[in-house]
Amino acid sequence: MPPTVRRIPRPTAQRLSLYLREIQPLIALGQQTLSSRALGEKLGISSAQVRKDLAWVLQSKQTNEAGRSGVGYNCVKMHDSIRRVVGTNRRWSTALVGVGNIGRALLGYGGFVQDGFPITVILDADPRMAGKRIGGLVVQPMSALRKAIRTHRVTIGILAVPRSSAQAVATQLCDAGIQGILNFAPMRITVSKGVSVTNIDVSIALEQLSMDVSISNRSRLTGEGAV
Amino acid sequence: MPPTVRRIPRPTAQRLSLYLREIQPLIALGQQTLSSRALGEKLGISSAQVRKDLAWVLQSKQTNEAGRSGVGYNCVKMHDSIRRVVGTNRRWSTALVGVGNIGRALLGYGGFVQDGFPITVILDADPRMAGKRIGGLVVQPMSALRKAIRTHRVTIGILAVPRSSAQAVATQLCDAGIQGILNFAPMRITVSKGVSVTNIDVSIALEQLSMDVSISNRSRLTGEGAV
Repeated sequence: MPPTVRRIPRPTAQRLSLYLREIQPLIALGQQTLSSRALGEKLGISSAQVRKDLAWVLQSKQTNEAGRSGVGYNCVKMHDSIRRVVGTNRRWSTALVGVGNIGRALLGYGGFVQDGFPITVILDADPRMAGKRIGGLVVQPMSALRKAIRTHRVTIGILAVPRSSAQAVATQLCDAGIQGILNFAPMRITVSKGVSVTNIDVSIALEQLSMDVSISNRSRLTGEGAV
Repeated sequence: MPPTVRRIPRPTAQRLSLYLREIQPLIALGQQTLSSRALGEKLGISSAQVRKDLAWVLQSKQTNEAGRSGVGYNCVKMHDSIRRVVGTNRRWSTALVGVGNIGRALLGYGGFVQDGFPITVILDADPRMAGKRIGGLVVQPMSALRKAIRTHRVTIGILAVPRSSAQAVATQLCDAGIQGILNFAPMRITVSKGVSVTNIDVSIALEQLSMDVSISNRSRLTGEGAV
């Protein structure tokens, strides 16, 4: 029986991304090994948590054994192993739908290509936008979606359209064979089976923050530390 | 001994925001009660998970008892109880620092005021921006930060500045007495003790998505369902 592909818990997955960011500059500086304690200290995470997170990476059949007790993790091997789990060992061609303010902010942020997520296609429903050149790419009309996604082997769609058209565009992206959607519209979208979605929702992020501030204020008022 | 303020787990906290979004329109339609099963079905969450999440709300001393077995939860009471825990029962005055593309996208998104997070101050480090009017507000220079935050009783700062200046601005916000920061810069910022931070990090979101797509692809290849 082949080993089961385990779904990595979301908080672990998010920390793996942070670990990558910390390990990469160390490799550039020529550092050979890194202890779970040193890695944890950089991020304010306990060494036990780091070891637990990295155990997820090591248990995956996608990875090499990379950690040795007392010696620490081999930086290069651990970096490679995490990248294979995260999927950033390959290049993901992405299509941006919507070139309003959010779309332009994304196009203006050069980190994508470096991170392995080049935007190769940009589209907009506004016919006045079609044909315009933004950040080296020409805005395509929505009618060009399916063909552009095939031509550029796009696997990830970035949904930066208003709430009112988000579901319709998400459905178009799914029908065109996209595998994942990064959704900036402030709503949950319904997608085809097998399509992954990550939501970036500013309202929810603000609510998380107000919850944290409220709890922090209450624990100050009662003279208790938050658990 | 006063009851301890318990830190709600992050996934539960995020679901509480989603529950609010679902319950609100039902109240507007006059619906009295809602079962955990019906609420869960709207969001693709099990009724057991909904009950577990709402138990966090009910255990908090901030809330009323709102659920009754067999009858379901009283919509109005549950909505009020969640809002008290999330902190959206009050108005949070926010200051936006940085009126580039991300900042403008946020100013253009009208949902904030409705959600209880009005942007009352906008600031930018670029002297050419100072004095310009955007979305009904006049851009202030950074030198006006401390005074503007006091005058407008700002509790939350929205950090929409480049990575290079993010830490310096975060420190300024902390020194000015802010209680929470919504950070859009693609890096972890260090803040004063007692200040809460929520990060909106597009690179990390893309990595989460590539991880999900990779796992989904692997489970398709091996003919196994992801756990």
